[in-house]
Amino acid sequence: MAHESENNSTASANRDRRLFLSAAIALGAAFSGSTSMSAADPGGGDQENLNPRLYSFVGSNKGSWKVTSQRAIVGDPLPDVPYVEVVHGDAIAAESEWVLRGATSNERYVTRSEKNDLLQKQAALGRKQSTHGAILPIRKNAKWWALTQEERRAIFEESSHHIAIGMKYLPAIARRLHHCRDLSQTEPFDFITLFDFAQADSSAFDEMLVALRATEEWKYIDREVDIRIER
Amino acid sequence: MAHESENNSTASANRDRRLFLSAAIALGAAFSGSTSMSAADPGGGDQENLNPRLYSFVGSNKGSWKVTSQRAIVGDPLPDVPYVEVVHGDAIAAESEWVLRGATSNERYVTRSEKNDLLQKQAALGRKQSTHGAILPIRKNAKWWALTQEERRAIFEESSHHIAIGMKYLPAIARRLHHCRDLSQTEPFDFITLFDFAQADSSAFDEMLVALRATEEWKYIDREVDIRIER
Repeated sequence: MAHESENNSTASANRDRRLFLSAAIALGAAFSGSTSMSAADPGGGDQENLNPRLYSFVGSNKGSWKVTSQRAIVGDPLPDVPYVEVVHGDAIAAESEWVLRGATSNERYVTRSEKNDLLQKQAALGRKQSTHGAILPIRKNAKWWALTQEERRAIFEESSHHIAIGMKYLPAIARRLHHCRDLSQTEPFDFITLFDFAQADSSAFDEMLVALRATEEWKYIDREVDIRIER
Repeated sequence: MAHESENNSTASANRDRRLFLSAAIALGAAFSGSTSMSAADPGGGDQENLNPRLYSFVGSNKGSWKVTSQRAIVGDPLPDVPYVEVVHGDAIAAESEWVLRGATSNERYVTRSEKNDLLQKQAALGRKQSTHGAILPIRKNAKWWALTQEERRAIFEESSHHIAIGMKYLPAIARRLHHCRDLSQTEPFDFITLFDFAQADSSAFDEMLVALRATEEWKYIDREVDIRIER
């Protein structure tokens, strides 16, 4: 349900900031600053130069989200972790099993009317009742990326109804899409979507994934890991 | 003429590799590796973890390209530099005036028939006679990025004829588009296009820029620097 919209409230941004700081402390993480970091400032905390839309997903033995299940749907799995921390910014967690990064960005597929519908229906991450969630990193194959925009859109929506399927589960399921493919470093996935929802909506979430995974679009996905989380 | 295609030959990749290495030496540059660089490896050369489509444009007093003119078309200028080096990978040049980064990526606007036309007509960078060139970093405003894909395409091509204008100058003018907006660090521009061409085609290049800068698309550009180069 990668709707590619960004409607974070200030409250949510502040929450992310706190998570970011708490993760830095809790994980003993070193923050890499940016690739512009000078040699005179090795490992320094030049967070100001980071893409402000960058998020990191840190899998380790500490974190706000407890991992309740983790499995590879297609392609290689990720090493099992007991917890995940989602931080706003970059993270190098010395004790972490893995760090996945992605940046929110402009929308790539929605039309104006679809966008208006989404804006009207969708909710932000972090609602009090949203104690359950999922992190779904996916990678699309070379054939997908060689398609033109119009060809990708036709598969994404006209054939696979990605937006229409996701729309049915709004506002119960909130999500934020992160793009990884054009970051400065090589990332193991192209997209990471973070979802959260109330426990009562867990089966609706499963139903949505079954529908999406049966689409033509999903034939282009050559790696997908399904990580379920609770807080 | 940001056609967003990527047709680099192996020869071109090898040339880039040599430039990359020579730049490292000539500029006394330290390579940042990646944002995953560990504190134990400050300034280390972890180039393997870099996005393989990442390029850096290093403005300093050394480099393969001599700057013959540099001016801000709209928005803030960049500090004047006598030379630019284009390197494949990331670069921290301690003695450089500035470093701009961007990654080649999948196409965002061309249709299948436009793509086929481009593939048939365009040439790769680095031809022997291409002693002249330009680096054109541009930034688009928030209004542009709030548009949907279909709205951006309509302005880009149906109204502004960006692809059609550029097509007229193929294969004389070769170019490579780099995306900066979704890199891990904040970049001052959204796109960097590198052009090269024979001296005899310099006035055709100027003519093309006059046409592009008169389009509706260019109204969304809030920063553009025009850097002319020779080697």
